[in-house]
Amino acid sequence: MLQETLEHGRRLTDAALERLIPAETQHPVSIHKAMRHSVFAGGKRLRPVLCMEAGRMIAGSLPAGIEELGAALEMLHTYSLIHDDLPALDNDDLRRGRPTCHKAFGEAIAILAGDALQTQAYEALARLRCPAESRVRIIEEIARGTGTVEGMIGGQVVDLEAERSKPTAEMLEYIHRSKTAALITASLVSGGLYAGATDDEVRKLRAFGQSVGLAFQIVDDILDVTQTSEQLGKTAGKDTAAQKATYPALFGLEESERQADSLVKSALEQLQGFGERANTLKELARYLVERKK
Amino acid sequence: MLQETLEHGRRLTDAALERLIPAETQHPVSIHKAMRHSVFAGGKRLRPVLCMEAGRMIAGSLPAGIEELGAALEMLHTYSLIHDDLPALDNDDLRRGRPTCHKAFGEAIAILAGDALQTQAYEALARLRCPAESRVRIIEEIARGTGTVEGMIGGQVVDLEAERSKPTAEMLEYIHRSKTAALITASLVSGGLYAGATDDEVRKLRAFGQSVGLAFQIVDDILDVTQTSEQLGKTAGKDTAAQKATYPALFGLEESERQADSLVKSALEQLQGFGERANTLKELARYLVERKK
Repeated sequence: MLQETLEHGRRLTDAALERLIPAETQHPVSIHKAMRHSVFAGGKRLRPVLCMEAGRMIAGSLPAGIEELGAALEMLHTYSLIHDDLPALDNDDLRRGRPTCHKAFGEAIAILAGDALQTQAYEALARLRCPAESRVRIIEEIARGTGTVEGMIGGQVVDLEAERSKPTAEMLEYIHRSKTAALITASLVSGGLYAGATDDEVRKLRAFGQSVGLAFQIVDDILDVTQTSEQLGKTAGKDTAAQKATYPALFGLEESERQADSLVKSALEQLQGFGERANTLKELARYLVERKK
Repeated sequence: MLQETLEHGRRLTDAALERLIPAETQHPVSIHKAMRHSVFAGGKRLRPVLCMEAGRMIAGSLPAGIEELGAALEMLHTYSLIHDDLPALDNDDLRRGRPTCHKAFGEAIAILAGDALQTQAYEALARLRCPAESRVRIIEEIARGTGTVEGMIGGQVVDLEAERSKPTAEMLEYIHRSKTAALITASLVSGGLYAGATDDEVRKLRAFGQSVGLAFQIVDDILDVTQTSEQLGKTAGKDTAAQKATYPALFGLEESERQADSLVKSALEQLQGFGERANTLKELARYLVERKK
């Protein structure tokens, strides 16, 4: 059942990405090849799936066209991966088992491909098939979730700075909440807004996203320690090697697992009021902490 | 009179940028310092001024809050400069007489500061004080103008590729139209949309922008050859040194000047129907080709 949800969401998202990103034959071809290289690298499309299921929960069925919102979220996630992988940042050669964008296309094109995916995402958001009032709220929500104050870029900056110092628990929580949980939260909230969620429903989706998003990143830290590169499809033990700030490094494995479980429990409580309609989002939340890669 | 328009527009834009970009004391401070370093480096704010004057022409007076749109355009322009200056692209150490962003803050922070200015621009656009319907049209217009197909990033890509080949006149026109004229056009059109322009008015602003924008870049090419670094406030002769595709290199100085003049003439014709209300935009168009830096 959950596998079907994930698979269906992935297919809808991929079809929307296919429509929204210019073809490889479109001039200038190098940038479109680079964008597609990174976007179609076999991701799980978790953020789009969370977005679509939030929309389905609010509306009672999948709102028409919501996959374009999912695709925009995936473009933003991919832009951040391309830039994170650059030599000046994490300096990664492999991503999902393929050469990273700058390895395949050179640094200049990789920088521009990341830029372009961000641009293309906002163009797609401006054209969503929901009222203009909802579109501007969605754009604001997503820009904040990927911004510098409590969003993705802010988390990335503190993560970089933490490599040169011994991070405190507070700093680590800021990094994880901003770098990962903020875009996951924006995915859920924007899916709700697309479906016409009330302010109270938005508040619940936000609280759910903040807890699930942080749990997701703690589990990512744990998997980096406990799984092999083969199991992950990316270099394992990388965080330790880079002396990255992680939950297992700071709290130990057992306490990290306890915290992830406790966050998911409190996330599930946020969805009580939605009754059975919340079942899929609840299943997704449990999947995010039980996954093995 | 024109100097007053420029000065007033610059001041309004700077005040809006001051409000919209998080303070240097806002955590994480390094990214906000880097954003401000590049944004407040003494630019002429030409795109905001063109945007505001287009809005004034359409509405009859300066529409309230339009400077926030101008500020968003300037953030997008600045993000492109920060990324263009990176070692993997133009590798510039100086910009407007100051160290470039990566020279002052390191490459990682410069990449993220560029990213963040783009993000912050869209957040500002989503919150503009005009109807949501206008805001989404403005966002779409600007995303296209800065995108890969006929926008800023596309021009940048072909510009990079042209360094390794002998560019044709067609290629050079594509570069200049996309890299420079597209954002200038989007500035004028979005200013018009903010002020409630009709489709016909938008069409005229677009045609005006395309001609003026191309003329502006041709003049930039000419100044690079004819002025000293001191006069320009940036390294002169850089295009020649980098074997960049330029109009003077391809057509000679005299023919380049003739083309710029002719483009401005045809731009001015687009504004005939607006009568005296178009005087300031016309003056601005003439200024753009007559400027000495």
